[in-house]
Amino acid sequence: MGKTILAVATAWAMVAGAMAAPAFAQTQSSEAAAFQTSLRADLDGQYDQVIADLVRITETPAPPFKESARAALVAQMLRDAGLDNVTIDAEGNVLALRPGTEEGPVFVVSAHLDTVFPEGTPIKVTRDGDRLFAPGIGDDSLGLASMLAWVRHLENKALATRQPILFVATVGEEGAGDLRGVRHLFTQGAYKGRIGAFLSIDNTNAGRIVHAAVGSRRYRVTFNGPGGHSYGAFGIVNPMAAMAETVRGIYAIEVPSDPKTTYAASMVSGGTSVNAIPDKIELQIDMRSSHPADLAKLEQAVLAAAETAVAGENAARDTKDGTITLVAELIGDRPAGMTPADHPLVQTAYTASQAAGFKARLDDSSTDSNIPMSLGIPALTIGSGAGGGRTHSTEEYLNIGRERFVAGLSVGLAVILAQTKVRPR
Amino acid sequence: MGKTILAVATAWAMVAGAMAAPAFAQTQSSEAAAFQTSLRADLDGQYDQVIADLVRITETPAPPFKESARAALVAQMLRDAGLDNVTIDAEGNVLALRPGTEEGPVFVVSAHLDTVFPEGTPIKVTRDGDRLFAPGIGDDSLGLASMLAWVRHLENKALATRQPILFVATVGEEGAGDLRGVRHLFTQGAYKGRIGAFLSIDNTNAGRIVHAAVGSRRYRVTFNGPGGHSYGAFGIVNPMAAMAETVRGIYAIEVPSDPKTTYAASMVSGGTSVNAIPDKIELQIDMRSSHPADLAKLEQAVLAAAETAVAGENAARDTKDGTITLVAELIGDRPAGMTPADHPLVQTAYTASQAAGFKARLDDSSTDSNIPMSLGIPALTIGSGAGGGRTHSTEEYLNIGRERFVAGLSVGLAVILAQTKVRPR
Repeated sequence: MGKTILAVATAWAMVAGAMAAPAFAQTQSSEAAAFQTSLRADLDGQYDQVIADLVRITETPAPPFKESARAALVAQMLRDAGLDNVTIDAEGNVLALRPGTEEGPVFVVSAHLDTVFPEGTPIKVTRDGDRLFAPGIGDDSLGLASMLAWVRHLENKALATRQPILFVATVGEEGAGDLRGVRHLFTQGAYKGRIGAFLSIDNTNAGRIVHAAVGSRRYRVTFNGPGGHSYGAFGIVNPMAAMAETVRGIYAIEVPSDPKTTYAASMVSGGTSVNAIPDKIELQIDMRSSHPADLAKLEQAVLAAAETAVAGENAARDTKDGTITLVAELIGDRPAGMTPADHPLVQTAYTASQAAGFKARLDDSSTDSNIPMSLGIPALTIGSGAGGGRTHSTEEYLNIGRERFVAGLSVGLAVILAQTKVRPR
Repeated sequence: MGKTILAVATAWAMVAGAMAAPAFAQTQSSEAAAFQTSLRADLDGQYDQVIADLVRITETPAPPFKESARAALVAQMLRDAGLDNVTIDAEGNVLALRPGTEEGPVFVVSAHLDTVFPEGTPIKVTRDGDRLFAPGIGDDSLGLASMLAWVRHLENKALATRQPILFVATVGEEGAGDLRGVRHLFTQGAYKGRIGAFLSIDNTNAGRIVHAAVGSRRYRVTFNGPGGHSYGAFGIVNPMAAMAETVRGIYAIEVPSDPKTTYAASMVSGGTSVNAIPDKIELQIDMRSSHPADLAKLEQAVLAAAETAVAGENAARDTKDGTITLVAELIGDRPAGMTPADHPLVQTAYTASQAAGFKARLDDSSTDSNIPMSLGIPALTIGSGAGGGRTHSTEEYLNIGRERFVAGLSVGLAVILAQTKVRPR
């Protein structure tokens, strides 16, 4: 045991040392490579277990807002892996604290429970060669199974970390979940104000390091009007025209390409009959940017476009039966944020990814890390494993070729060990 | 019997004579009034029967495209009223020929079988004072029940008309039915080319004389595009933007107010998720005018607006994943037309309506008469009865206060007798 701890401690120094070199330019040291090799050897021994966990987790459905069955399973699996302080919080997140040798802020290691697949979607894992197929197998069963492997690594080797680690399986990462789990964790839960850094495992490529949070603001904009007979009431204001002018106004907005800032008029519905002027049109709009100020500026421009369109319609046509009114309802809010590329957490992940043989690259995305990044708490979302595809479709798959898969698994573990500073217990 | 026939023949001369006077300015002659009084006396004797027929017809549902149960009932009721040549044509119309004393073009007297109410709508006639309540009671059960009363009048009095009368209960007058019944009658049925004039009974006010057919052209316009992720694919063409520009283009079209010409962007739908650029947006558009050339011009402008919008969108944004394409599908086609205000049929109806004590007025609408009017065949849609309301709603009602109701019933009969030139059989 002493030997392993020494090796880990030495490797930590290697990884930490690498961080001092010009960012991302250095070649990996032989010591870091040796460290990765030792981690991989252990994780290789867990390969069959990880695959079995993947299947078990995946086949326990976790539709949006209905993650409780999978939460209960993961809580039990965390206990089975050796943790004895496992709870489920008020929002539905599974929390498992592994104490450190020192007091202080906790390091959160997380993956999300929910999938995008609605209740009733058939979910059965199938294998074809080196691929496992099933909805959600990579997004994010892999993150959950990886976390369990790492817990077993720490427990089986009785590794002590300086910093406490809070393992979290979150609810509501996808779509309408709107990051409700991680939001609760940081703003209402028992660990509010006590989280020092955050790591989310949420894609299938251990080379992808998401250090920038694409923020989004999503609106349902409803245009209400009097409505009427298409012939008899011709000439009165039409919410359809106000909606159209709004879309046109949005698509005339100029947005920066760096930081990438985007909008989409994505969904629309309204009207009851072809021969009636509608009394209501609903429009959904998505706006994104990794830069909060750009996102706020865009949002302001979009809402102004809607207001201008409504005022224009009320001025252009007859309002004797009523005016067009506007209700803009925020239906999605993912704050933007960033962990600087030169932050130790980013550099550690980058180095570990390279050491494991991955073509490391920094990226941006919208993940659970949006919340801590927006709060200025160092956070990162990285991949585990060695690729997959067709995410969010029922043809989703995961590559499980043993060597690369295990190499992918090792990256997150290396980051955890570096971040929490392994010390003998 | 001879006396009645004489009275009718005399009254016809009165009505015909009134037509020579400056249109709509003359006061009713005492002879015409006496004629109306005699008709009312007979119809008053049928009052209880008409109310019973109304209830029976109304409570036999006739949803759009599912009029066969009511058709069978009305066919039997026409037989019971004394006609022996009753058939149902290929489209579902009920046809009952009452031969004239002379050969020649037939005079069609019609009402429509269908209602706007979907299958399963609860239909039970209730009475509150002088009102009968039920979906469809006025539109157009009243027309059908009126027709039956007039057949009984002709049969019971053994009145012979010069011109043959074809009583028709049509299918598909409402909405998506798109006048399919009357269209079949004039363009494909056994009486194609043999109809000299057409009278439709289709509103609850015997003072309303619809001599102008508001034509309509209705389109479902589908904007297709590649679609994609709202953030990842930002910059590609969006069918939503093309739809919006189309609506904007339409609402910039100037249309004449006389003849009244109108448009409405009435229904819209599309998009699958707030975070996706949609791959399809559907827009429904209604256009109307009583002037065929104005309607055609409007249609051309609307379709040009859509084409311009699509071309503009393909020029404005990236088409690497595909372009926006347009499918414009005609989903409604009611031809415009008019029977001139000084046509004998219009003047007869106007005079008869005034003689019965109604405030006669000429109007335009979209009814079964659209088809003959568009073909240049004299046609008219008039009301029967003495008012009602909330048409096309489940709170529809009909005024059945005896005296005014019977007066309303008499108007159509007076028109028929005048048109077909009653002669002893």
